[in-house]
Amino acid sequence: MGDFSNYGGSDEENAEIKRLNADIEADPDSFENWEKLVRACEGLEGGLNRNSSPQALATLRDTYDRFLLKFPLLFGYWKKYADLEFNISGPESAEMVYERGCASITNSVDLWTEYCSFKMETTHTPHLVRELFERAADHVGLDFLAHPFWDKYLEYEERQEAQDKIFAILGRVIHIPMHQYARYFERLRQLSHTRPVTELVSAEVLAQYQSEVEAESLQFGIQKTELELERDIRAKIDAMFYQIFQATQTETTKRWTYESEIKRPYFHVTELEHPQLANWRKYLDFEEAEGDYNRIVFLYERCLVTCAFYDELWFRYARWMSAQEGKEEEVRNIYLRATTLFVPISRPGIRLQFAYFEEACGRVDIARDIHAAILNQLPDAVEVINSWADLERRQSGLDAAIDVLKAQIDSPMIDIYTKAALVAQWAFLLWKVKGSVDEARIVFAKNVQWYADSRHFWQKWLEFELEQPTEASQESKHASRIKSVFVEIRTKSRLSAVIKQELGQVYLNYLQQRGDKDAMKEFLAVDRELFGPQSISAVGKGALRVKENGAPLGELDDADRSKAESRYFSYYQLHTEPDSNAQGPASFN
Amino acid sequence: MGDFSNYGGSDEENAEIKRLNADIEADPDSFENWEKLVRACEGLEGGLNRNSSPQALATLRDTYDRFLLKFPLLFGYWKKYADLEFNISGPESAEMVYERGCASITNSVDLWTEYCSFKMETTHTPHLVRELFERAADHVGLDFLAHPFWDKYLEYEERQEAQDKIFAILGRVIHIPMHQYARYFERLRQLSHTRPVTELVSAEVLAQYQSEVEAESLQFGIQKTELELERDIRAKIDAMFYQIFQATQTETTKRWTYESEIKRPYFHVTELEHPQLANWRKYLDFEEAEGDYNRIVFLYERCLVTCAFYDELWFRYARWMSAQEGKEEEVRNIYLRATTLFVPISRPGIRLQFAYFEEACGRVDIARDIHAAILNQLPDAVEVINSWADLERRQSGLDAAIDVLKAQIDSPMIDIYTKAALVAQWAFLLWKVKGSVDEARIVFAKNVQWYADSRHFWQKWLEFELEQPTEASQESKHASRIKSVFVEIRTKSRLSAVIKQELGQVYLNYLQQRGDKDAMKEFLAVDRELFGPQSISAVGKGALRVKENGAPLGELDDADRSKAESRYFSYYQLHTEPDSNAQGPASFN
Repeated sequence: MGDFSNYGGSDEENAEIKRLNADIEADPDSFENWEKLVRACEGLEGGLNRNSSPQALATLRDTYDRFLLKFPLLFGYWKKYADLEFNISGPESAEMVYERGCASITNSVDLWTEYCSFKMETTHTPHLVRELFERAADHVGLDFLAHPFWDKYLEYEERQEAQDKIFAILGRVIHIPMHQYARYFERLRQLSHTRPVTELVSAEVLAQYQSEVEAESLQFGIQKTELELERDIRAKIDAMFYQIFQATQTETTKRWTYESEIKRPYFHVTELEHPQLANWRKYLDFEEAEGDYNRIVFLYERCLVTCAFYDELWFRYARWMSAQEGKEEEVRNIYLRATTLFVPISRPGIRLQFAYFEEACGRVDIARDIHAAILNQLPDAVEVINSWADLERRQSGLDAAIDVLKAQIDSPMIDIYTKAALVAQWAFLLWKVKGSVDEARIVFAKNVQWYADSRHFWQKWLEFELEQPTEASQESKHASRIKSVFVEIRTKSRLSAVIKQELGQVYLNYLQQRGDKDAMKEFLAVDRELFGPQSISAVGKGALRVKENGAPLGELDDADRSKAESRYFSYYQLHTEPDSNAQGPASFN
Repeated sequence: MGDFSNYGGSDEENAEIKRLNADIEADPDSFENWEKLVRACEGLEGGLNRNSSPQALATLRDTYDRFLLKFPLLFGYWKKYADLEFNISGPESAEMVYERGCASITNSVDLWTEYCSFKMETTHTPHLVRELFERAADHVGLDFLAHPFWDKYLEYEERQEAQDKIFAILGRVIHIPMHQYARYFERLRQLSHTRPVTELVSAEVLAQYQSEVEAESLQFGIQKTELELERDIRAKIDAMFYQIFQATQTETTKRWTYESEIKRPYFHVTELEHPQLANWRKYLDFEEAEGDYNRIVFLYERCLVTCAFYDELWFRYARWMSAQEGKEEEVRNIYLRATTLFVPISRPGIRLQFAYFEEACGRVDIARDIHAAILNQLPDAVEVINSWADLERRQSGLDAAIDVLKAQIDSPMIDIYTKAALVAQWAFLLWKVKGSVDEARIVFAKNVQWYADSRHFWQKWLEFELEQPTEASQESKHASRIKSVFVEIRTKSRLSAVIKQELGQVYLNYLQQRGDKDAMKEFLAVDRELFGPQSISAVGKGALRVKENGAPLGELDDADRSKAESRYFSYYQLHTEPDSNAQGPASFN
């Protein structure tokens, strides 16, 4: 929105709205801030109506638009917005809002029902109303709690006194597993007794039943009257309906367990309880096992209204969809919604997965753009930078990969500890991809002056030296290289004693596994220095930590220490299978 | 003890003692069971005395001996045992028990004081009693709470009316930082006024004071009387004592913080609270910083009565001692006590450290024996077997190391999952020490038929293939090797989906970092299979898991699964720095 300071209210109101907008800018994820702003706008000029000032109306609309762009799944606010538009500008404007709302949250029984209800009150052309009811049926008709919608549809046809249409609707509904399935069946059965048989079933089925009934009477040599024949046919039709009812009942019962556990069928910004997530997982397992594509998609869509902020379920949806034949566009659409609308940016995993998907589809530039977009928000995401370098390596070769790393290493936006990790990755690429051990070693050795406080840098350097293949004749050179890295860690870095212990273990382990006859003397000396009490251990006291010029190194402050010692995990490394017994609220992050 | 069913009591008593002995055999660590047995033995024949049957007395002694071998630090039971022996067989037997007790718990103020008290009541030769008091002073005199002992010593000399000896004792005691330091100083000062100056200080000091006093009077040209001179000398002596008092007060105050926090100065079988351990650590830090060898050792010994079951403090003691010059024998003694008496066998770390110490001292056979002894108790301790193999490699070469592994792999005592880890280590030695990649690969490939359910085996195999150096020309061969290991994991092993996910990540990571232009298609397919919902993932359902002959593999039961998926950590890998803010009881394990 523009920075207009006249929101169409009193000075006091304008100041309040300005303040609330500032709050939102500071914390756009705070639902509470948004709610306050919406309330304040609605209250302008003592409540808005068609006579309100254009300024105030513009403020209201701008606020609602921004609010619902941020939280498109809040069906109640779409309804409220439509009502406001109806009061302000009449049915056309309201209809526009309903359309936008139903496009944003495509499977809300409530919103579609409201929309249909609005339409039947404001439109006098039945085929237009019916068109909307049919669109709604496509989007929400399969919902387990779709009865308010179907009731509204039946109510409309009752007003039109279109008994045949009512019967046709009921004939569809009785196939759907729903909370109130029995009610519709009862109504259909009663209605069927008042309708001509020709309306009840298709001509073919009717002809079949007729011939069956006639054949049965012939068998016993009985000539039945027309009325008797109809009674028998109606009995067959009744039996057919009852069979449908029984099948629907079975399907309903199967889903009842899961449906009855859904405590929050709608979207909200607060966290869900773990058992709720567990129930959705089980429900999806069930519906996938049933194997009906439409029902599965419908359930995923419902699930992802409630669980929109949980990447686990977006991942699952994308994986499931990608296992179906020829659904590339559907998969793309799932990733798009997940990454642009819902999953918190603090979880870049699904955005990277999106990039891999596009790369696999041959859209490499899009894959690049996705990486760039994540880094725009999370400039220090080591996983993302490395992933980008890997992408370039796969598509354009080693130099392109190293260019990605170098660009970030040279960037003033990037933290020094991030750079340390990137330099280690650079060495890794030279070593593993180019096969040049010497170049890799030079990268470590030349850069240690900048990155001596990075745990990751040292870990990678140690791993690098340790993994070098050796022959017995070279073991002593190998040993001295590893030892010298270890000595440098002790003398050049300001890492905490705990981290030095951890890195030192690599050396201890090396001494055990590769050291010579006297190795255990060195082993015990290192053990003493790393793990002994302060009075005998140089590590803890930092006595050895001096700069090149002999001046003692300072200490890292807490913020630096936490960055210096951080570990970089990929999405997969952090992956854990959901615990079906977990309790309490489930974090989005 | 022999299996004699006549314990010297009634049939009922004998049955009870038999039962209690069986309980102890089943759970020798249960202090409660031991206590019950001791009580039952004491109660034989309505309470034992010198007229009890030899059988009953033998039962009692045998029980006490076994009990105090198991829990040598329970000074109260040594005292009780000595009292019983005194009643049964008289002072010589009691003295034997006291001697054994004081050898077992060398620094118990209570036990030494009891022993001295017993000795002064039963012995009429003062020099023998004093000899014991002096031995006791060596062992417990420095204790912060040593006042009951010193009081007893002073009491004895009072009985002997040996004022000079009393004065000499007080002269020693006022140097020791103790809880009741002030009391002894007061007493010494008062006593000093009644004693001739020649007794108060050494001849040299007296001569020095004398000449000082004379010089001072000469300076002012005053001729003092003998009495005046003595008064002045006594004033100087008083001042000297007061200086000692002040120094002792300072030392006492420094230790007061730590001493006042010690809630349990004695040994007990139950766990200590974390803050208690933290206090001991801080106290040791302090005393080490003070730098007085005797005081430091004394504090470690006190600490290791209270904290006998915590290997952390034994490690610390050994490390600290080994940093002192020429204390090899002392270090050995610390390890010996820790490993034979106190640290639970479930924590083999300190036993291995003992072995490394002996190896470093050139006593390789002892190092071997220590490994063997641990395996006797913990036959499946992978860390210990690998450590033994490493020891042989260092001392006798690769073949000796592999022999250690093979012996365990062939042993019927060893679990199959342990063997899987040993086979992986065997391959590791061939690869890293011998430098023979081909031989290592053969070990994996030939043995997979036996160990396909071991997580560790696969992890090591994957690491092995992944770490092979490559050139661009060989990358496709490399890739197919890694892929084939991954395929075998999926098809041959009964590991859980979570573990397959974890191992599969290695392959996913490889595809990212080393794969070609089309790698991400494979990446997404593997991702789907490993992490997708069951309906699209073969891994979870085990559909792919078939035996060589095509029959489906069964499922692992829970006990097997936990072994199949276990991780083997070394002492160092599990090491964490103690958390000084931890609360609640600290586990021994």
